[in-house]
Amino acid sequence: MAKITSREKDYSQWYVDLVKEAGLAENSAVRGCMVIKPYGYAIWEKMQAQLDKMFKETGHENAYFPLFIPKSYLSKEADHVEGFAKECAVVTHYRLKNDPDGKGVVVDPDARLEEELIVRPTSETIIWNTYKGWIQSYRDLPIKCNQWANVVRWEMRTRLFLRTAEFLWQEGHTAHATKQEAIDETVQMINVYGEFAEKYMAVPVVKGVKSASERFAGALDTYTIEALMQDGKALQSGTSHFLGQNFAKAFDVQFANKEGKLDYVWASSWGVSTRLMGALIMAHSDDHGLVLPPKLAPYQVVIVPIYRNEEQLAAVREKVDVIMEKLRAKGISVRFDDSDAKKPGWKFAEYELKGVPVRLGMGPRDCENGTVEVARRDTLTKEVVELDGVDAYIEDLLEKIQDNIFQKALDFRAEKTTEVNSWEEFKTVLEEKGGFLSAHWDGTEETEEAIKNETKATVRCIPLDAKEEEGVCVYSGKPSTKRVLFAKAY
Amino acid sequence: MAKITSREKDYSQWYVDLVKEAGLAENSAVRGCMVIKPYGYAIWEKMQAQLDKMFKETGHENAYFPLFIPKSYLSKEADHVEGFAKECAVVTHYRLKNDPDGKGVVVDPDARLEEELIVRPTSETIIWNTYKGWIQSYRDLPIKCNQWANVVRWEMRTRLFLRTAEFLWQEGHTAHATKQEAIDETVQMINVYGEFAEKYMAVPVVKGVKSASERFAGALDTYTIEALMQDGKALQSGTSHFLGQNFAKAFDVQFANKEGKLDYVWASSWGVSTRLMGALIMAHSDDHGLVLPPKLAPYQVVIVPIYRNEEQLAAVREKVDVIMEKLRAKGISVRFDDSDAKKPGWKFAEYELKGVPVRLGMGPRDCENGTVEVARRDTLTKEVVELDGVDAYIEDLLEKIQDNIFQKALDFRAEKTTEVNSWEEFKTVLEEKGGFLSAHWDGTEETEEAIKNETKATVRCIPLDAKEEEGVCVYSGKPSTKRVLFAKAY
Repeated sequence: MAKITSREKDYSQWYVDLVKEAGLAENSAVRGCMVIKPYGYAIWEKMQAQLDKMFKETGHENAYFPLFIPKSYLSKEADHVEGFAKECAVVTHYRLKNDPDGKGVVVDPDARLEEELIVRPTSETIIWNTYKGWIQSYRDLPIKCNQWANVVRWEMRTRLFLRTAEFLWQEGHTAHATKQEAIDETVQMINVYGEFAEKYMAVPVVKGVKSASERFAGALDTYTIEALMQDGKALQSGTSHFLGQNFAKAFDVQFANKEGKLDYVWASSWGVSTRLMGALIMAHSDDHGLVLPPKLAPYQVVIVPIYRNEEQLAAVREKVDVIMEKLRAKGISVRFDDSDAKKPGWKFAEYELKGVPVRLGMGPRDCENGTVEVARRDTLTKEVVELDGVDAYIEDLLEKIQDNIFQKALDFRAEKTTEVNSWEEFKTVLEEKGGFLSAHWDGTEETEEAIKNETKATVRCIPLDAKEEEGVCVYSGKPSTKRVLFAKAY
Repeated sequence: MAKITSREKDYSQWYVDLVKEAGLAENSAVRGCMVIKPYGYAIWEKMQAQLDKMFKETGHENAYFPLFIPKSYLSKEADHVEGFAKECAVVTHYRLKNDPDGKGVVVDPDARLEEELIVRPTSETIIWNTYKGWIQSYRDLPIKCNQWANVVRWEMRTRLFLRTAEFLWQEGHTAHATKQEAIDETVQMINVYGEFAEKYMAVPVVKGVKSASERFAGALDTYTIEALMQDGKALQSGTSHFLGQNFAKAFDVQFANKEGKLDYVWASSWGVSTRLMGALIMAHSDDHGLVLPPKLAPYQVVIVPIYRNEEQLAAVREKVDVIMEKLRAKGISVRFDDSDAKKPGWKFAEYELKGVPVRLGMGPRDCENGTVEVARRDTLTKEVVELDGVDAYIEDLLEKIQDNIFQKALDFRAEKTTEVNSWEEFKTVLEEKGGFLSAHWDGTEETEEAIKNETKATVRCIPLDAKEEEGVCVYSGKPSTKRVLFAKAY
């Protein structure tokens, strides 16, 4: 059986064990790069499908831009290069040759690139260089492209899904004729992310704006969704950037407006990544394994037969066929595990580990009685249910589970969000309770930096729904007009 | 208006013009890497969705493996390294720094990787290195993974979709306990590709086996689907490889069989790429633009209103709303282009260029008469049809178009496939008519090479359905037992 360290004993190890034992991902032979295993990838595909639908419903189209970025492009936007040049994979050659000294292959020194290529850490530069050819007048705007792609950032300390050198993501890049339109797009997309996190992942998020120091390199404003994990640490789960005219200026992308005057194009970019997998895993799961929200589970229902001989199995199968047909007619995904190699007890534990929302167990007595045992993953409770109408029962149950998982996470967050009003209180609550600290801050980078150095807590965001209120900064005592959220973060 | 060179004048330029003017793709600032534009990507997404469905129906799961491959992995399979080391992107450093001499950034010499990383040209090596950790016994087999990914091969001469340095593809990698199972998988997948090409792309293909010289580097057998383009050249459109135990041996992947004895695992791999876009474009399109099979068209029907004032537009819109609802209820994708910026004539030409299978034109007279003008892209014919029942009419028409496009390509191929029986005939037919030459070949690499050198024609494949018949090689006069297909190829 799978061995998972308990959360209480070692939260970090619990996460690592869970990712491994549930077959979600593993480290590869290439430092910092992960292998996403089929069960993990199936969850990611569910996320992709839903996000893609939401992007298209808001008027976006998919496209694909090159993996490589010429080195000089990175330098064209001053802040951008500072943010991304530090950690990138650099392609310098385009050929290998047989090692003249013996076995294996070596880089062919004659095949050196004139200009090095960077494996994209994000695609603003290559995309804005492309948009230059697409945009002449206001009639060519807006452009609303998204791409699903892999990106590489040479992180030194990596953790599966949360921080890896290569990760999968989507990046939206839009071009607009007016500042307001670009801002509206930026806000629209953080709302799309928020809706996805809450309705599909069942993860409550705070929507807000980043402080200047946490902004995307090259953005005028970065919007974020911040989620709280069970260890009381925050996880930035998606960001949407208002880029102003920075990239248009860097790549000289101008358009003729309705009056025929030239102006630089306004931009947004926004992305979520396989990091969402980390959020999903950490927000809901327990010491038994994964807990998946029904809307993202690769299969929502698993049926395990209990039998001693072929005759009993045949009787169970007959009932199960009917159930499966009815569930599928309702759009519910279901798997019947009649493999002979494992016992029911093993299977029960396995599907608990994999977080399948609903498990049905069916044996000879159930066949006789016209019943089935229904187990909920989220509460670990079981009930015996009449076969007649079990499809409607399960349809309803899946909704209940989705709601319950979200409510549980919401209650947890409420419990772990504390208004603090003094520096002593800040430190004590952070140390003893963790979670989000809602506190007044003077808005300066110096204070932010000092707080970070003393406590490791950072400004996660200035919530969009923050009330205007008079206050004084918990650290400096200077005046402040609204509370912001602090937390230790992944 | 778009200007497209005619096929007769310059087939190559026609293709380039078409890809550009229809908004499918363009060259990027990075040599050999393309930008796939939204309309082109929408077609690729349709292909992906259908292929993905077919892979899952045949028991495959998606996963994701690293972009980078340690240099030493490439050398582990002797043939593989010969085939792929020659043209690859090599990552040697992981950081840039500010240029000490002035502006911009330079590669940080202190950030040199201990072992260089290759951007994957194909993933057999990294995947088999991973499978080693997944496989202990026959109970762990088969493994049937597919990944959708980007790969890089440093091609010197590139053409959009047909041959690019970076391209998108899927690669299936399966592991089996027996040789026969691996061969069955290999054959199954070439059949899946064949079905996809013919039923969805409407491109007839010959299924066959590659000659030894055209085999995938590291395979024991390569199966292929070969399509014929309008210029009489063949396009290899998908391949499926029986890898034997080569990669299992290179990465030491053994399993305990049912008898408890260790044996190496048997393998297949198979892939299709954005090259299919090239096949789709070249197989059907004409001098007016793209011709898309309805099953892969981003939208199958476009409706263009014809009006002089708002009142007329409102009347048209009322009718159109009803049509659109009925079409969508039948699962037909439809777009209503009521943009004011362009005239109907411009729109007609634009949708012809974009290959939309069915175009409806509707004006005030149609509103009065209860009719609509229906134009077919494939035949460029028009008909006036009663509004009543037009949805069923269009549903039927889309099927007819799909069939007609396929039949046209099939007739073309039949016309362009010639049995030749002497070397003179071979050269004359190749020169004057082109297409597939069905000829006896002695099976030796020397003859294949000589024919290629003299004529540029290569053995495209040994068709799976080739008849056994006595004959003599067209080139060497040596005995042969079946005809193979020769052609010039992309």
